[in-house]
Parts: sequence; C-alpha cells; structure tokens
Amino acid sequence: MKPAKTIGILGGGQLAQLITLAAKPLGLKVIVIDTSPDCPAAQVGAEEIIAKSGNDQSALNELAKRSDVITVEFEELFDVSMLKSIVATGKPVYPLPATIELIKDKLTQKEFLRKNNIAVGPFAEITSQDQAEELLAKYSGKMVIKTRLGGYDGNGNAVVQNVQDIAAAFQKFLGRPLYAEAFVPFTKELAVMIACGLNGEPAVYPIVETRQERNICTEVLAPAQISGEESKKAESLALQVAEHLGSAGVYGIEMFLTEDGEVLLNEIAPRVHNSGHYTIEACVTSQFEQHIRAITGMPLGKTDMKVPAAVMINILGERNGRVELKGTDDVAIIPDTHLHIYGKSPTKIDRKMGHITVTGKDVQTALERARKARKLLSV
Amino acid sequence: MKPAKTIGILGGGQLAQLITLAAKPLGLKVIVIDTSPDCPAAQVGAEEIIAKSGNDQSALNELAKRSDVITVEFEELFDVSMLKSIVATGKPVYPLPATIELIKDKLTQKEFLRKNNIAVGPFAEITSQDQAEELLAKYSGKMVIKTRLGGYDGNGNAVVQNVQDIAAAFQKFLGRPLYAEAFVPFTKELAVMIACGLNGEPAVYPIVETRQERNICTEVLAPAQISGEESKKAESLALQVAEHLGSAGVYGIEMFLTEDGEVLLNEIAPRVHNSGHYTIEACVTSQFEQHIRAITGMPLGKTDMKVPAAVMINILGERNGRVELKGTDDVAIIPDTHLHIYGKSPTKIDRKMGHITVTGKDVQTALERARKARKLLSV
Repeated sequence: MKPAKTIGILGGGQLAQLITLAAKPLGLKVIVIDTSPDCPAAQVGAEEIIAKSGNDQSALNELAKRSDVITVEFEELFDVSMLKSIVATGKPVYPLPATIELIKDKLTQKEFLRKNNIAVGPFAEITSQDQAEELLAKYSGKMVIKTRLGGYDGNGNAVVQNVQDIAAAFQKFLGRPLYAEAFVPFTKELAVMIACGLNGEPAVYPIVETRQERNICTEVLAPAQISGEESKKAESLALQVAEHLGSAGVYGIEMFLTEDGEVLLNEIAPRVHNSGHYTIEACVTSQFEQHIRAITGMPLGKTDMKVPAAVMINILGERNGRVELKGTDDVAIIPDTHLHIYGKSPTKIDRKMGHITVTGKDVQTALERARKARKLLSV
Repeated sequence: MKPAKTIGILGGGQLAQLITLAAKPLGLKVIVIDTSPDCPAAQVGAEEIIAKSGNDQSALNELAKRSDVITVEFEELFDVSMLKSIVATGKPVYPLPATIELIKDKLTQKEFLRKNNIAVGPFAEITSQDQAEELLAKYSGKMVIKTRLGGYDGNGNAVVQNVQDIAAAFQKFLGRPLYAEAFVPFTKELAVMIACGLNGEPAVYPIVETRQERNICTEVLAPAQISGEESKKAESLALQVAEHLGSAGVYGIEMFLTEDGEVLLNEIAPRVHNSGHYTIEACVTSQFEQHIRAITGMPLGKTDMKVPAAVMINILGERNGRVELKGTDDVAIIPDTHLHIYGKSPTKIDRKMGHITVTGKDVQTALERARKARKLLSV
C-alpha cells in the first residue's frame, strides 16, 4: 500500500468530523461523501462530495478516484456490493467490505460470534409469527425482536413479552428480515473500543460502562466500575473478536454484564463509536487517530488513559427547530469539562448534537459534573 | 457584550489554525483574514477573507462586519490605528489595540515593564551609532541591538560586541528605529502563558523552558526543570504582567533565568505563542481554547497539567521546495508522540511547518523521544 495522503469517508456526520480533526495534524487530507451540504466533517475542513442519495454510484466513484484509502462512518450509506466493486478496482477499503457485510446483518454477526466461541446470549432467526411465539416460550417469556439490517440507535429493536407485542413488532417491521435474542437480564452494559492494525496487531481500550435511554447511548463512564475479574473477561472477549474480524479498523464492541458476573457480547459496530468519544481527552491516542493509524498502515498508538477517569454525556436535541446554543459560559465554569458541538442544523428530538466529556480523579465526580453541565446547556 | 458566535482573526497561519480547531467544538465559527489563499486556518474549516496585502482596509471592514469579536494571530498584518478604528465602530478587538500597540514597539514595552517595577535587564533607546558605542561600554562590552518594530523569530536582533558589529547592525537595520538591551548572561530561557479574562481574572500556565536555535524556538520543556523558588519568581513576574496589561487575551511571556537565580522579563507576545503549544495535550485547557474563553467573556479554564511532563519540538523546514511529508509511520511508533502538521506549502528553510509534542512521566524521556521523532520526520 502506498503512503495514504487522502482518506475518503462514507458519511460526513460527527464521527467523520472527529476523524477529520484527527487526520489533519497527521498531514492527511479528508474527503467525505454525504447527502447534506455543509455536513459536520466539511465544517472542519474535509472536502465534501454531495451524494444525491445513498448508493450514488458516480459520487462513490469520484470519492474512490480522489482517495488513497476509503473508510466508513455510516455503514448504511452504500450497499456492500458497491464497496466490493471499489476494492475490485484496487482501491483499499477498511474495514473490508466482507467484514462490514458480516457485521451489518446482525444475524450473521451473531452466527459469526457463536461459531468463533465468543460468548453471546441465545438468539435465532425469525421466519414467522408462529415461530416467534415458540421462541418466546423457549426464551422464558421475554425477548428482543430485531431487524437484521438497518437498526440504529435502537430503531430496529422491540422488546416483546406476549403475543400482542409480537404482532405489533411484526407490524412495525413489516417485510424486513428479523431475528430474536433472548432478553439478557444484565446489571450493566459495557463497551470497549478495539483497533486492528493492517498487520493484524490488536489494541484494546479500557472497558467502559454505557447507559442508554430510549435505546440511545446517553452516558459513558470510563473506566467501567466493575471488578478486575469482570474487566478481564470483557477485555478477553474483545481480543477474541479482534482476532476473528480479519480487517483493519477501529470497532465498537458492546457487551452485557450479567447478574452472575458473566460477560456476553451484544453487538459490534464496524467503526469508531459513541462509546469511545471519551478517548479524545482521556487516552493517549484517541479512537479517531487510532482508526486513521489502523487503516493507513501506521503503527497503532497507546490506548492507556492519561487521566484516572472520564465521563461522556451526549447532547441530544430536545426539540425540533433552529439551533440556539445556550449555556456554554455556564458549562465553562465547571472544571475539567470539554464541550464538543458538532455544528449540525437543525436541532431535532434525540438528534446527537454534540457531547460533553469531563475528566477527573474519579468517575463519580466526573459524572456529577457532566450531568450538571448537560443540564446547563441547550442546543 | 452579546454572546460571540463568530470570531474574526487577523492572520490565518498555524496559530489561527489551532484557535480554529479549539473554537469549533465550542459551537463558534471562525473567519480569518490572510494574504494567501488556503491558509492553515482555512484548511480546518475557518472561512477566509483574502487580503490584497497588509492594511487592506476593505478586507478588514468585511471581517469586522461578519465577526462578533476580533483577535490577532499576526500583529504585523494591520496598523494599530486600523484596529482602533474598528473598536470605534463598537466591535470589540482583544487584546485591546492599545495593549497591542504597547507590546508591538519593544522599546515602549520595556518602558512599560520598568515603569511597573517588573524586573527587566538594562536597555536604552539608540539614537546614533556613537551613542550605541557608549552604551556598549556601559553594558560591559556585549549587548543586543533590536529593531523597535517588526522583529520576529529573531530577525530584528543583532548581538554586538565591538564597533564593527555596531556598524554592521546599523547597516542591516538601516532607517529602522532601534534600541539596545544589555546582554543578559542567562542560564536558561523560560516562558509562561498567561490568560486574562474580560473581567480581569488572570490564569497562569506552568513555567516552561524554551530553547532556541538561530533565534527560533526549537524546543519547549514543560515544566521547566528549575527550583521551586525560581518557578515562583517567574510565576509572580507573569502575574505582575497580567495585572498591568489591562486587556483580555492570552499572552506569551518570555523570561531569562540569570546565573544568580534571578528572573528577568525578556519579551511579551500579545497572543497565543509557540511556547504554549504543549498545552494541547498536556493541560486541562489548551492555550487556544483559553484564548477563546478570554476574548469571548467565558470563564477561564484550568491551566493544570494532566500529565507529569511534556516536550514540544518545532518542525522547521530544512529546504526550499514542495512539501513531501515522510516518516510519519516511524514517528507513530514512538510512544506518547503527537504530530501536528500545519498544511503549509511550500516548505522553506526554518519555516514552521508543524510541531511534535511528546507527553510522559518525566521531561528527559519526553525530550529524547521528541528529538528522535523529529529526526525521523522530513517535510
């Protein structure tokens, strides 16, 4: 692979913005492809190719022509077959389209994990409503019906506990391929970022705890407040995943910590991830720089935390309308608080408009400060 | 002052680039004025107004119209009278033009310092070659002749030790107003960044040691390896300066540590400064975010280091020609090493093309790693 000078990114949202901010100081150029002009990445100096819609072949061709390596911020923007056709022309795409394909379909992802002896909860394909009812009985009366494709921020998930719930889920996901997971009674949700270099070398970030509301990540606590043994289990699970993914890139790994102290793998994201935003201030190498290192063949950087603790809170939109950022002065008073506004417009309910990271001596203090900061801010 | 949404910067070089990178996550927009298209700040998403030359009144008017507050990266780009005329229209400029004026003329700067009982070495205006010779005798046979205006990276300085040196300096600086400073036999050069909030509240960063070659800063060691007493003297000097500057902004203060352990003030820069680049990775609040906080009326952030030590090395151009960045992969292997390439083109001998910051447990390790990294890189 010749030295990369230009990174092409599919998607120009906040993840691409944060990759762009990390790429520039390394002497690299970024071009993104997005459907909206003035996307967050373009606002920090990425060139933007505007796609007419997803799967815009001519826009993708232009990106491929102008980039030395291509990566993915939003894996739904293009069909995997289109990414494969780019690789066929000799232009590298990382993660490999085959790896993205494997992860994108949550059922094949789960099958891949099970096949490689990575601990996951019970799951099965759903082929009919009747069969879903049988599964519900088998799964002790509580399970999650998920769409195999296109799920994002929980919008492809439905928790079901009876026949009516199943019927409603079938209605909601009409015509989409589905599968079910037994409901895992977890005590905490954990996550970890892993990086795989072009030479296969893995790097694991600290295990963090994630908290969700309405299926959207709201808080990330780093490091997770769990026992050393639990932490080791989670890390070893992540390393097992890294070993089998077979493709360069940074991945977000979501896990459940069960009531009996076991760690089960929940989901993999084939890209930088919301649960790794804290790494910008808290780790030696941010997940964004790490991803660039991974896909351009640079050696991976250290993943250690350089502060004892950090908490990240998402700034989700609370109304629909024009952005009116207020409260930044009040937030600035809170010590060790770092604001990240993405420049998205307009604001929408639950849209990820930014995040706040607070570093500190311990997770509890950082959490209190981060929550206080979030309350003072409106966007 | 109404909440600032857009910051206008006079100059679009690396300092403006690093301010822009800090402004964006705070939800602020940046517009810069520069004479070269595609300046470093524009490359990271600042809008750019291209000035035909320095003192381009219509470009300045446009910047003023579109900005909520104006600040300065390169204080030579516009005459202070032009900045004053902007303030007269009601648009805030920080630092205040009067403060910039005071600092820009190194002789009035020195007089200001002496008047306020801030320790400086002996100095005097030079009015003729004869009088310069008298001064040289008074200053024990070694002094520095400096241009009052326009000195930058040592290009307005000449060390003189005899009549021939004086004649050469007069030739070199023909027609420019001059002054002389007694040569201070220092053991170390120190520097410190100070910030003054709109309400006058000061914040002092750690004292660092700076090393120069050919009058250009090459290395910065943070914190300076000096005694606690010396450090306190330097900090108290910086606070004295902050008290008298009377204007919001971040300032770089350069000092001498003399052989007998005294600290003398050398020069003030009315802006973010090369000796403060280490703050990006090493301090809770970078000098760039701090400057934005200061000039927009936000509360100042914490200046503490979050790592025990950091060393910054400048990447100076070593030839004239097209940029060919090489060695970034080798640099990436060195632990705790952070690369900052500014995107300037072409490369020129001694042009500041980027910098490297290495964080670490101690200054010595960080220094060794930073020097190794610098050697591996060519630009």
